[in-house]
Amino acid sequence: MLIVMHHHATDEQILAVKNTVEAMGLRAEPIPGSMRTAIGVLDNQGYVEDSAIRELPGVREVIHVSKPYKLVSRDFHPQGTVVDVAGVKIGDGQKAVMMAGPCSIETEEQMHTAAQQVKAAGGHILRGGAFKPRTGPHSFQGLGVEGLKFLSAAGRAVGLPVVTEVMRIEQLDVVCQHADMLQIGARNMQNFDLLKEVGKRTHPVLLKRGMSATLEEFLAAAEYIVAEGNSQVVLCERGIRTFEKATRNTLDLSVVPLIRGMSHLPIIVDPSHATGQRPLVPVMARAALVAGVHGLMVEMHPEPEKALCDGAQSLDPQGFAKLMGELSRIEAFLAELDS
Amino acid sequence: MLIVMHHHATDEQILAVKNTVEAMGLRAEPIPGSMRTAIGVLDNQGYVEDSAIRELPGVREVIHVSKPYKLVSRDFHPQGTVVDVAGVKIGDGQKAVMMAGPCSIETEEQMHTAAQQVKAAGGHILRGGAFKPRTGPHSFQGLGVEGLKFLSAAGRAVGLPVVTEVMRIEQLDVVCQHADMLQIGARNMQNFDLLKEVGKRTHPVLLKRGMSATLEEFLAAAEYIVAEGNSQVVLCERGIRTFEKATRNTLDLSVVPLIRGMSHLPIIVDPSHATGQRPLVPVMARAALVAGVHGLMVEMHPEPEKALCDGAQSLDPQGFAKLMGELSRIEAFLAELDS
Amino acid sequence: MLIVMHHHATDEQILAVKNTVEAMGLRAEPIPGSMRTAIGVLDNQGYVEDSAIRELPGVREVIHVSKPYKLVSRDFHPQGTVVDVAGVKIGDGQKAVMMAGPCSIETEEQMHTAAQQVKAAGGHILRGGAFKPRTGPHSFQGLGVEGLKFLSAAGRAVGLPVVTEVMRIEQLDVVCQHADMLQIGARNMQNFDLLKEVGKRTHPVLLKRGMSATLEEFLAAAEYIVAEGNSQVVLCERGIRTFEKATRNTLDLSVVPLIRGMSHLPIIVDPSHATGQRPLVPVMARAALVAGVHGLMVEMHPEPEKALCDGAQSLDPQGFAKLMGELSRIEAFLAELDS
Amino acid sequence: MLIVMHHHATDEQILAVKNTVEAMGLRAEPIPGSMRTAIGVLDNQGYVEDSAIRELPGVREVIHVSKPYKLVSRDFHPQGTVVDVAGVKIGDGQKAVMMAGPCSIETEEQMHTAAQQVKAAGGHILRGGAFKPRTGPHSFQGLGVEGLKFLSAAGRAVGLPVVTEVMRIEQLDVVCQHADMLQIGARNMQNFDLLKEVGKRTHPVLLKRGMSATLEEFLAAAEYIVAEGNSQVVLCERGIRTFEKATRNTLDLSVVPLIRGMSHLPIIVDPSHATGQRPLVPVMARAALVAGVHGLMVEMHPEPEKALCDGAQSLDPQGFAKLMGELSRIEAFLAELDS
Repeated sequence: MLIVMHHHATDEQILAVKNTVEAMGLRAEPIPGSMRTAIGVLDNQGYVEDSAIRELPGVREVIHVSKPYKLVSRDFHPQGTVVDVAGVKIGDGQKAVMMAGPCSIETEEQMHTAAQQVKAAGGHILRGGAFKPRTGPHSFQGLGVEGLKFLSAAGRAVGLPVVTEVMRIEQLDVVCQHADMLQIGARNMQNFDLLKEVGKRTHPVLLKRGMSATLEEFLAAAEYIVAEGNSQVVLCERGIRTFEKATRNTLDLSVVPLIRGMSHLPIIVDPSHATGQRPLVPVMARAALVAGVHGLMVEMHPEPEKALCDGAQSLDPQGFAKLMGELSRIEAFLAELDS
Repeated sequence: MLIVMHHHATDEQILAVKNTVEAMGLRAEPIPGSMRTAIGVLDNQGYVEDSAIRELPGVREVIHVSKPYKLVSRDFHPQGTVVDVAGVKIGDGQKAVMMAGPCSIETEEQMHTAAQQVKAAGGHILRGGAFKPRTGPHSFQGLGVEGLKFLSAAGRAVGLPVVTEVMRIEQLDVVCQHADMLQIGARNMQNFDLLKEVGKRTHPVLLKRGMSATLEEFLAAAEYIVAEGNSQVVLCERGIRTFEKATRNTLDLSVVPLIRGMSHLPIIVDPSHATGQRPLVPVMARAALVAGVHGLMVEMHPEPEKALCDGAQSLDPQGFAKLMGELSRIEAFLAELDS
Repeated sequence: MLIVMHHHATDEQILAVKNTVEAMGLRAEPIPGSMRTAIGVLDNQGYVEDSAIRELPGVREVIHVSKPYKLVSRDFHPQGTVVDVAGVKIGDGQKAVMMAGPCSIETEEQMHTAAQQVKAAGGHILRGGAFKPRTGPHSFQGLGVEGLKFLSAAGRAVGLPVVTEVMRIEQLDVVCQHADMLQIGARNMQNFDLLKEVGKRTHPVLLKRGMSATLEEFLAAAEYIVAEGNSQVVLCERGIRTFEKATRNTLDLSVVPLIRGMSHLPIIVDPSHATGQRPLVPVMARAALVAGVHGLMVEMHPEPEKALCDGAQSLDPQGFAKLMGELSRIEAFLAELDS
Repeated sequence: MLIVMHHHATDEQILAVKNTVEAMGLRAEPIPGSMRTAIGVLDNQGYVEDSAIRELPGVREVIHVSKPYKLVSRDFHPQGTVVDVAGVKIGDGQKAVMMAGPCSIETEEQMHTAAQQVKAAGGHILRGGAFKPRTGPHSFQGLGVEGLKFLSAAGRAVGLPVVTEVMRIEQLDVVCQHADMLQIGARNMQNFDLLKEVGKRTHPVLLKRGMSATLEEFLAAAEYIVAEGNSQVVLCERGIRTFEKATRNTLDLSVVPLIRGMSHLPIIVDPSHATGQRPLVPVMARAALVAGVHGLMVEMHPEPEKALCDGAQSLDPQGFAKLMGELSRIEAFLAELDS
C-alpha cells in the first residue's frame, strides 16, 4: 500500500500517518519526493483495510498494491488448473471444450433432441437452464426440478456431462444430484453466500463474470470459491455492460489473454449472451478460440424460433454443426501455427 | 411492439412477419413508410417475447413499447405508496426519513452508542449490517445472527425501528424476527428468488439499485416483490458504475425526479456508498433532499477511524448531527418554497 | 511513481528496473515487502513517461502518483480563481451566475426576445449557438457568423454579456469579436489545438466536460488553456455517458464538491444537456446550486415547441422566470444556512 | 418514428399529437392497443426533429426508427466500397491490409528504420504521428511539419503509402501534400467541421471511433465525410471506454461483423490503442482477423523502450515480423475455411 500525501502536508501529518500504520502492526517507510511525500506500507499479508488512514489530515490518496485475491493468482500458482467435468478436461494443454444446449429446458423431448444434436456435432457438455433469472417477473421462469431431470436424462442418454445454473443455496443439493457442473450466473457473481456454499462442494463450477464486474472483482469472486476448498473453477466471460446498445452486451475478448496471464484457472467465452444476436455468435466464437479460450458455451435450440427464452441468440442445429466443424479445423490450424 | 423491416424487405417477408405475429394471438398492423415498412403489434398484455420474430428474414429491428413492469408504474397507480416501517412513514406527503448507523455491526456497545447518537440527532431508522457482502473473502464478513441481536436491542433501547440487509433466503426468518425493514443490497437486486421470497413477507423492503442496473431493470426488480403481494417497497439509488473512478460510484441523482414520475414507490438516496468519501456525503445528502427524495440512508459510525468496514465514507457523530440540523432547515425551507 | 514487481521477481530484475529509472535522471528507492518488492521513483517534476519501465521483466504494474495537471490544481494554488466576463464575476465568494438562452440562434427576433426574457428574469449572461455540432450531417447546423451578430446585438440591447461555442480555430477571431466568453463544447474538450489557441486569447473560457472524460482528463484539458497564459477558465459539468439511457446523459453532480476541492477554477453545471428533459431541468438546477456550483447554464427558448434544436430540453420563459425566482431564494437560504 | 402515448392519454391529446405531426408535413397513423395508443409517423425522409412532439401532453416516449445516416448504410448501397490508398486496396474481397509504424515520428532515422522494418515484414501502409493529441500539455506533442517530411520520405524510400493524423483544418493542406491517407483520431470523431473539410478532399480517410461513440454515432460521423463527396472512408475500431481499467480501452470486436452488415465501408481494428499492452496486441490482432476485419493498424517502433509515446503498447520489429507471418498464414487458412 502506498499513501500519497498532499503537497503541503506537514511533518506532523506525515508522522501521524506513520504512527497510525505502525499501530496496525505494519511498517511505514516515508519516501520524500520533490513535490510531495509518499509513505510505503510494508509487511502486510494481503489487502489492508484503509479506513483508519484515508481520512487522516494531509492524506491525498491511498493506493492499494495487494489484490483482494491470491489463491487464484498465477503469480502464486504458476501451474494451470485443469478442471475435470465427469471426464471432460478443461484447461491448459487441453482441447477447447464446447458446452451447448438451449437457454432453458422446455420439454423432455426438446432436451433429448438437443442432446443428440450437441453430441452428433461433437459437443462435450450439455447445457440447459431449469431455474431462469429473468429481468421481469412476468416472463417464463423455468421448469425447476422437473427440468433438471429432463436435462440429466438427456445427457446420460447420449453420454454427455451436464451443466446448469444454480440460483440459490437451497437448490444446491438437488442440482448437485442431477448436474455434473454448477453454473453461477452473472447476476450471482457477487452472491457471496452462494459462492461459499459452492466452494464447499466437490462439483466443478462455471463462474460467469458479472455484467459490470471488473477483472479484479471477477477473480476475487473465484477466490471465494477456491478459499472454501473447491479449486475446480472455470471462469466465463459473457460480455459486460457499456453504453453501446447495438449488441446485448460488449464482449470483452481481451480479458482472455489477460486472465490466462493473471490466473491459473481456465477461461471460456459465451458469445451468445455477449452478442445477443445469432449471426454474430459463430464469428465471435471463432475469434474467441483464436484469442486463446479453453472452451466455449453457446446456446443451441432444436427450433430457435419456438424457444421460450433467448431464441434470437440461439444457433439452430445446422448452424451449430457447421460451427463445430469450423472450430475443429481452427483448433488444428492453431496447434500447427503455434508449434 | 414495433417491428421495423429493412428498406429492401419484400412483400413476402412482410407477410411472413404478420403471420408469425398473428400465430402468437396478437394483431399485426403494417405501417408502410417512404423508406421502409414498420409493423405495429397490438393486443399484447405486456412484454412480448420476441425470439420468434427478431430473426425472420427482412426484420431490421424490434422495438419494445411495453415495459417489463406494470404494478410499480405510476401510469397504472397514480397514488403514491406510503411505506410504514414500524410507525415511520416513507413516501409522498411525508417528511424525509433518515436511516443511519454503521456499515457493519461490530460490538454490542458500538451499536448502543450509535443508536443513541442517531436518535439524539433526530434520525428515524437505525441501520447496521450483520451479514456483509465483501468483494474478497479475506475481509471482515460481519457478526451474523449475534449482530442482529445487538442491532434490534440497540434500536429498541432508543425507540428506533431497524433495517438490515438480508443476503440469502435461509436468513429471512431470523432477519424478519429482529428487523423492521429488510434491505436487499445492490449485488442482490437481480437475485430473483430472494426478491420473490421477500415479496411473500409483510416486512417493508428497502431495494437498492444494482450498480449497473438500468432504471427499467430497477423497477422490474421491484415488480418481482410487488407481484408476490408485498407493495411496501422503498427504492434506493446508491450510485452506478461508470468509467469515472474519482468517486466510488457515480450518484445518478436525476433518477429521483424520474422515478417520482414513473413509479408510485418512494425513492431514497444513499450518498455514502455513492461517493465513498466522507466530505462528499453531507453535500450530496443536501442536494438529494432538494432533488426530491423521500429519505436518505447514510453511514454514521461512533468512531469512523476504527470502523471495520467503510470507515472512510462514514460520518462521525458530530458530522451527522450537523447534517441533520441542516436537512431539517432545508426541508422547512423547501416546504415554504414550494407552497 | 511506484513500480510494483511480481512476487517472483528476481534481484537482477529489480536491479535492472532501478538502473533504468536512474538512467532517466530519477531516483529509485526499492521498498521490499513480505510478498513482493515495490520501487518508489523520486525526483520527478511531474508526470513520467513509463514506456521504458512498464515492459521490463518482473514488472507487474506502474502506478502514477503525479497527475497530468498542476497549474489548475488547488494543491498548488489554494486561492480560488474569479473569472470576469465583462463585469460578471464567477467563482468563490461570488453569487451563482446564470447563463441562459436558446440552444441555437435562429432569427434576430428570436434572440432579442430571448435576451429580454433572460434579462427580465434576472439572468447574467446570454447564451446561443451559432455553430452547432450535430450528430448527423442532415440536421440544422447553425446560422454561423450572421448568428453571432444577432447574439451580440441582442446581448448589447439588454446589457448582458454573451457566451457562444467556438468549434474551430479559424472561427476564433470572429467569435472573439462578437462574444464575451468562448465556449469549448464537450466534443472538443480534447481538441488540444483549439485549447491552446484559446489559451493565447484573453477572453474567458467556458470548458465543457467531454462526455466520457474522467475528472483527471477534464482538469488536464483546462491545464492546456492555462498553460498558454489564459487562467480565466470556468469548468462545466454537463453529464457523462453511461449505460443508463433514461436520461440523455448522467449528471455527475458529485464532481462539483470534488472539483471545488481539487481545483481553484470555478465549476458550473448544465442541467439541460445532462438530463435532456425539460421537467428535470429545474429540479436538477436546484440540486446543483445546493451542491455548490458557481453558476448554471440552462437552455431557454421563447417558444421551445418551435425550436430547431433541443427544444425538448429547453425551458420556456415562464419556467425560466420561475426557476430564477427559486434559485434566488435558495441562494439566500444557503448563505444563511452556512453562516 | 413511433410516438407512444401514456396509458391514460385522452382522445384530445392523441388528436393534438396527430395534428402536430401533420403540421410538420408528415402522416400520423394512430395504432390503438389494449393498454395504450401508439402513433406511427410516416412519409419522413430521414431523421425527424422531435422537439415539437416529445413534450406534448400525454406523450410518454418517442422512438426513432430512421437513423442519422443513410449514405454509408449497406441497406441502401449493398455493394462494398473498396478504398484505394495509392494502389493499396482495402475492402470486401481484398486481402487484409496492415498499417504499421511508430506512434509518433521522432527522427528521420527512426522513420527510415521503421519503414524498412514494416516493408520487410510485409506491411502495406506506413503510419506515424506528426501532430500528437496528448492528455496533458506537458507531454511530447510531436514534430509537426518536419515530421511529415520524415514520414513521406521514409514511405517513398521503401515504396509504402503513408497515413497520418490531421488534427485541425489548417493542417489539411500540408498533410495532404505529404500523406496518402488522412487519419481522423478518436478525439476528433465528432469534430464535424474537420469531417466536412476532409469530405471535400479526394484523399482516402481513416476514421477512428470515438472512445465513447455508439455505432450509430460512428456511422453518422462517416456520413459527414461521405455527404461532402468523399466516399473513400475506412472505419477503425480502437476500443471504447468502459468501467474496466485492466486494459487501456475495451476492444469492441463484435462491431466488426456488425459494421460489415450495416455499412458498405471497410472496417479495420487497432489492437494497440485498444489494449494498451504489448503482449495483448498480437493475440487480439489474430482474433480481429478471424472476426472479419479488412485490415489492422498496429504500433511498431524500432526500439519501443526508447519511444517518446506509447512505447508500452508498441511491438518491436521482431514481434511485428512474427505477427505478420502468423496473419498471413491465418488469412490463407480462413480463405480455405470459408471456401
